[in-house]
Amino acid sequence: MSFALSPQTVRGEAVVAAASSLVETFAQRAQAADAANQVSRENFDELIERRVTSAFVPVELGGFGLESIHDWILTIATLARGDASTAIALNMHLVVSRGMVQAYTDAKARLGADHPTTDGLAQLLGRLVTGEMLICATATEPGTDNLHPFTEAVRDGDHADSGWRINGRKIFVTLSPIATHLAMNLRLRDADGDHLASVLLPMNTPGMTPQDDWDALGMRSSGSQSVLFEDVRVPLPDLHKLGPWGRWSVGNLQSRALANLPLVGAFLGIAEAAHDTALAHLATQSRLGQPASENSGVRHVVAEMALELGQCRAVLGAAALQMDDYFARHAPAESVATMEDAHRLMLDYQVAKWTVNRGAIEIVSKAMDLLGGSGYTNSHVLARLYRDVRAGPFMQPFGATELREYVGKVTLGMWPDQ
Amino acid sequence: MSFALSPQTVRGEAVVAAASSLVETFAQRAQAADAANQVSRENFDELIERRVTSAFVPVELGGFGLESIHDWILTIATLARGDASTAIALNMHLVVSRGMVQAYTDAKARLGADHPTTDGLAQLLGRLVTGEMLICATATEPGTDNLHPFTEAVRDGDHADSGWRINGRKIFVTLSPIATHLAMNLRLRDADGDHLASVLLPMNTPGMTPQDDWDALGMRSSGSQSVLFEDVRVPLPDLHKLGPWGRWSVGNLQSRALANLPLVGAFLGIAEAAHDTALAHLATQSRLGQPASENSGVRHVVAEMALELGQCRAVLGAAALQMDDYFARHAPAESVATMEDAHRLMLDYQVAKWTVNRGAIEIVSKAMDLLGGSGYTNSHVLARLYRDVRAGPFMQPFGATELREYVGKVTLGMWPDQ
Amino acid sequence: MSFALSPQTVRGEAVVAAASSLVETFAQRAQAADAANQVSRENFDELIERRVTSAFVPVELGGFGLESIHDWILTIATLARGDASTAIALNMHLVVSRGMVQAYTDAKARLGADHPTTDGLAQLLGRLVTGEMLICATATEPGTDNLHPFTEAVRDGDHADSGWRINGRKIFVTLSPIATHLAMNLRLRDADGDHLASVLLPMNTPGMTPQDDWDALGMRSSGSQSVLFEDVRVPLPDLHKLGPWGRWSVGNLQSRALANLPLVGAFLGIAEAAHDTALAHLATQSRLGQPASENSGVRHVVAEMALELGQCRAVLGAAALQMDDYFARHAPAESVATMEDAHRLMLDYQVAKWTVNRGAIEIVSKAMDLLGGSGYTNSHVLARLYRDVRAGPFMQPFGATELREYVGKVTLGMWPDQ
Amino acid sequence: MSFALSPQTVRGEAVVAAASSLVETFAQRAQAADAANQVSRENFDELIERRVTSAFVPVELGGFGLESIHDWILTIATLARGDASTAIALNMHLVVSRGMVQAYTDAKARLGADHPTTDGLAQLLGRLVTGEMLICATATEPGTDNLHPFTEAVRDGDHADSGWRINGRKIFVTLSPIATHLAMNLRLRDADGDHLASVLLPMNTPGMTPQDDWDALGMRSSGSQSVLFEDVRVPLPDLHKLGPWGRWSVGNLQSRALANLPLVGAFLGIAEAAHDTALAHLATQSRLGQPASENSGVRHVVAEMALELGQCRAVLGAAALQMDDYFARHAPAESVATMEDAHRLMLDYQVAKWTVNRGAIEIVSKAMDLLGGSGYTNSHVLARLYRDVRAGPFMQPFGATELREYVGKVTLGMWPDQ
Repeated sequence: MSFALSPQTVRGEAVVAAASSLVETFAQRAQAADAANQVSRENFDELIERRVTSAFVPVELGGFGLESIHDWILTIATLARGDASTAIALNMHLVVSRGMVQAYTDAKARLGADHPTTDGLAQLLGRLVTGEMLICATATEPGTDNLHPFTEAVRDGDHADSGWRINGRKIFVTLSPIATHLAMNLRLRDADGDHLASVLLPMNTPGMTPQDDWDALGMRSSGSQSVLFEDVRVPLPDLHKLGPWGRWSVGNLQSRALANLPLVGAFLGIAEAAHDTALAHLATQSRLGQPASENSGVRHVVAEMALELGQCRAVLGAAALQMDDYFARHAPAESVATMEDAHRLMLDYQVAKWTVNRGAIEIVSKAMDLLGGSGYTNSHVLARLYRDVRAGPFMQPFGATELREYVGKVTLGMWPDQ
Repeated sequence: MSFALSPQTVRGEAVVAAASSLVETFAQRAQAADAANQVSRENFDELIERRVTSAFVPVELGGFGLESIHDWILTIATLARGDASTAIALNMHLVVSRGMVQAYTDAKARLGADHPTTDGLAQLLGRLVTGEMLICATATEPGTDNLHPFTEAVRDGDHADSGWRINGRKIFVTLSPIATHLAMNLRLRDADGDHLASVLLPMNTPGMTPQDDWDALGMRSSGSQSVLFEDVRVPLPDLHKLGPWGRWSVGNLQSRALANLPLVGAFLGIAEAAHDTALAHLATQSRLGQPASENSGVRHVVAEMALELGQCRAVLGAAALQMDDYFARHAPAESVATMEDAHRLMLDYQVAKWTVNRGAIEIVSKAMDLLGGSGYTNSHVLARLYRDVRAGPFMQPFGATELREYVGKVTLGMWPDQ
Repeated sequence: MSFALSPQTVRGEAVVAAASSLVETFAQRAQAADAANQVSRENFDELIERRVTSAFVPVELGGFGLESIHDWILTIATLARGDASTAIALNMHLVVSRGMVQAYTDAKARLGADHPTTDGLAQLLGRLVTGEMLICATATEPGTDNLHPFTEAVRDGDHADSGWRINGRKIFVTLSPIATHLAMNLRLRDADGDHLASVLLPMNTPGMTPQDDWDALGMRSSGSQSVLFEDVRVPLPDLHKLGPWGRWSVGNLQSRALANLPLVGAFLGIAEAAHDTALAHLATQSRLGQPASENSGVRHVVAEMALELGQCRAVLGAAALQMDDYFARHAPAESVATMEDAHRLMLDYQVAKWTVNRGAIEIVSKAMDLLGGSGYTNSHVLARLYRDVRAGPFMQPFGATELREYVGKVTLGMWPDQ
Repeated sequence: MSFALSPQTVRGEAVVAAASSLVETFAQRAQAADAANQVSRENFDELIERRVTSAFVPVELGGFGLESIHDWILTIATLARGDASTAIALNMHLVVSRGMVQAYTDAKARLGADHPTTDGLAQLLGRLVTGEMLICATATEPGTDNLHPFTEAVRDGDHADSGWRINGRKIFVTLSPIATHLAMNLRLRDADGDHLASVLLPMNTPGMTPQDDWDALGMRSSGSQSVLFEDVRVPLPDLHKLGPWGRWSVGNLQSRALANLPLVGAFLGIAEAAHDTALAHLATQSRLGQPASENSGVRHVVAEMALELGQCRAVLGAAALQMDDYFARHAPAESVATMEDAHRLMLDYQVAKWTVNRGAIEIVSKAMDLLGGSGYTNSHVLARLYRDVRAGPFMQPFGATELREYVGKVTLGMWPDQ
């Protein structure tokens, strides 16, 4: 009850249980990690040990075989109750690893389990399980949006087998300080035009320079530094074209909605932590001998916080179920999604993003109202939640100044292609 | 997608389909019924014909055998897209008929299908199917709340088999102008104290006088007149005690939440009608040659309306699923609900009530903004929706000045018994 | 205190006192006028008798000599506490009469008191005092905005002294059923291009046909019917050019802000009436023996209503003072206003419009929450206020879908010329 | 225009000009002071030098002779645009110094300018001008409110001339790290009962121990540490009784409203700084070649920020004017205020507090939306404003969980005495 999300699949239940077992420990480390402005290596060691980092890896290869997006979101939300920075950092890794699992599953179905390609991919997934691979991902650059990355790859010579040279700068590269690999989005300038493309690179690739410049108001232990790319050379086949540069496609819309909806879960987790912190505080408070719960003014603010939390949970839960349903309906063999389908998926993500990001800010603010001065102390968990929660509305697509324009268009039956 | 509710059961799908087939016709009649300030007899004839009035009656007895509360709510929401007055009037009948179906099912399980009691109940249900019975219900009286009805039944003599005499006045007796029977709540003053009790009475019972005094701002064709009870005599066994007067019990909490959550669906239906009306209008509009959809100001308001609608749908849908889950868990043989359980159920209904009643008001208001002066015309559907939608926050429990107090208490772990 | 507006000038005090003396009577007539869907002739007879209709007419000519815009607004707000339809209808007359007073004052200053032009204008003003002239004004047409009227005047022949021929259709011509004259805005198509222009016409001018089609959700006794213009002939000198068609000018911006800010006062008056109605109701209510004021839930809603009312009053009061200050600074002899100045004046009006129109809707809604079912009765004053108050956001410039775009532009330092 | 506050008196104009001249410098120091978590000594040196600290001191004694509360508020709001911590710290000093000025003025009127008492007070005021005296004030203790201080003074012996002994702990003693004196509120337990009382003490009084424990989320350079009082001895006549302990009186209500309304100004200053920061940022931004101002989504958020700022300014400005008017009407010789008068004054302050504290939070949040990631950088001014602004709702009377209860009561005509 109370609109709390609960696992929808058996595998999801196992992943969420693993995440739940870490919440308390993460919460205890969170203030120190925030103060140190550093990713908690210990948190990730435990996430690897409990195989949360290999949630999507098939059971046969040592992972949980998670498939439900709903349960992925719940995993992120659960961890964020302890430490939202860790939760959003982990999400980068999970997004990329889910893609790798799909590649493996496709290869296995197409080529068989024994084919060298399948096997190669299986070995890669094995490295996720051991923790040898921890993957961050790029999304954002200054002065542009996700659809128009300026970082570009051009051919590094005229030969048929010449590789690529990458130049550019990425910001908000969450998890990068402890990642072993980086999955990046870029603009591939080719003879036949400009493409969106992606590539997976080891963090120690020559020409890649993390900037150690993350010092933000909140989400301080997410390691969201920027990374510079100067003449980074990659071999020919490693770049994957994803569609035309600067254009929405069904694939882009789906993958952006998919990757970002779990991030919304992190802000739900923050809201839940603030809500629980406030209730725990009130249980110990009295003024002039009257317990806090006897104060009708307190009860009204508690109610407003609880109403808002119920709304956030219900909307995110429903969006999650819809997304699982979408991908069930649009699995390759079944049906090809149209631009309208994909925009409507994106729309539903935006409704969840708008509701939860704003609701979580409001819930933390109500919790502040309930704690009064004590929650305003720098060392108090609520002070960190207040700083962390404000990161939500920036997340793309779409930022706070773009979201309503987009939602309005799609509601009016327009399917923008950029 | 878009957080629209869809049937969760096969039987629910059939009921919702029957309801859907009536929406357009109901919408066409709604303005005239509103102007006439009368219940639409034709609407109810069609609801009987399509067996929506016998939705809960078992299939074996000619009904749909509906069990899912979620799908009940969706039925009400669907009808309300055409005419909310009819939808809330029907809901009164469905609440009571659901109770009668439970009595039949219990008797059948306990006494067997051939027992006269079972058979008597089966025949009663048969009259629901034919439309011979159409039942309204009382809930509200002036100056008190549902838990403390002032209308009272006292023993009508000193003999062991003396019946009861009922006196009082009920307001908002929706559907009563065309109902054949009335299910009422009252205070039973007995030797062992005061009890909440109920009784089912034919509308033509001597001493019962409908007041024909319903002339409201909105919900004008719901027939929510008041009814006067002057020395209404009922035989001894017809009154059913439901628990102590003025006290919440597990049963009361459950039945009040159950009866009222579908009413929230009516306000979702109003919101959906307003939303769709606005979009249909905008599709035909232009200003100085520019289509309305090209206007960014329009898009922002459309987005705000759509975001709010997504939230209302998600919250009501989640509350509905939770309620089905609650009754599955707390079916008699399985588990006995505690006061905490029952208050948490009531809490979830309040979250849905708060969200949808207020959200629907906001959505209708945004639709007004989008239509400008044309929606403000008295004969325009939106003008009626604007009047109808305002009835939502009054519905008990809990009214607009009580809801937050209650939600605050339960969130703080208090289980009020009055 | 409580942010209530109070007269800023001695003359304003007299006008407001006259208005105040009518509030109670207007309130008593309001429900009947609303039901009859007709302008209250009695109200206007009394407004004439108390010289509220001649508020702006100089004292020497029998009026109040009102100059303060603040006090004009307070006059409208005061009357709207009794009957908002009458208040907005009167405002049309006051806007036009204020212009006529300016013409007289200018003529007197320029030509002397004895000049025939001055004298002619004085006589015209005399007819305002006697009530022989009651003037409505046009502003709106379907499918366009105030800056781009489609109703047009073209030359009615080739002679130098040929007059004009007007064709078009105006909607929302408030007060027109009992007005003697109509001041209209139109597009004047001339040899040197298209102009905004105005003309004052007797209501019985051939070719002008009131449509008797006003039947709205609210503001029902405002007489806001549409008027058709078919080959309406006017002599050459009667049309006054006001600037280029479709272009904002300093003059247009000023006159639109000036004419419409008092209308915002009408919605403040509605809010005040709703607030007072709710408090009066609560003073008589109890539930289960507890006075309403002892109920903390009631107190919270009362507080929210009072906070909102304080905000509305403060913002409208400040906007009014700013407007008086603006016109004091930009009186012809002193200073010429720039487009920036004029847009900033318009911006301030928009802040007041946004705040009060939306706040008043919210206040009426809170009052509904406080009255519960009794305020939802069709004959209750609150039901009328609920319908009347929704007219606010439509008022131009700028409607609900345009206001934020405009405010955003001006705040960003853009001075749009259309 | 734009609802910006402007000085209402000539003296106020001079003080505001002095404050304005410091804004830029304060802003430059603010980030460092925030990081150091220390009161900026340099800021106060300059405030002393420009005589802002002696704003209320009569001109004849070297101050500005400020009388207008409106202009006091504007002074605080102005300084807060540069550094809100400094502004609220200064306000403590101004509150107390205003009281000292009143004592001097009263003595002069009553006893003559040459009386030793008058002269003693004049010399004290002289020390305000030189900066020899900088005064902090206590208000808050944990677990109670302003009306019920637990810190208490008891007689220190049985002799007629025995002094007092004070014990207790005060929190949020803003400015105390650099103050020379402390004005404290306490409970005086006397033979005739418990009283609210005050006393002015040098910071180096034996038994007073500042705790150096201020390390908050925001307002970090306000020096709001706690101070411990252990057997602090004060001579008999230094304590001033202010009315019964735990009871509102006209005097208490007036002095609490008076002291705290200027604090609201500090949050308006924060809002203005955030608003201006956002507009300055946007003027330099473009995305994919499109200037930010061309983006309609940006314009909508800018508009919402500007609308909210207009509301905050208008409400605070109106409350300030009302307070000046109140004290003009209730100057001793004129009229004695009733409890109703005093509660209505307090009510108006609450309306301003609610509006501005919440509005400022919203404005900072909109500014965050407009800046995106760049405002979320730890070193960015907006990150500090985001932390500082959240202190507003805690300020008493009344905190966020109490304000609506109080406003509801007074609106309903209840004049609570505790």
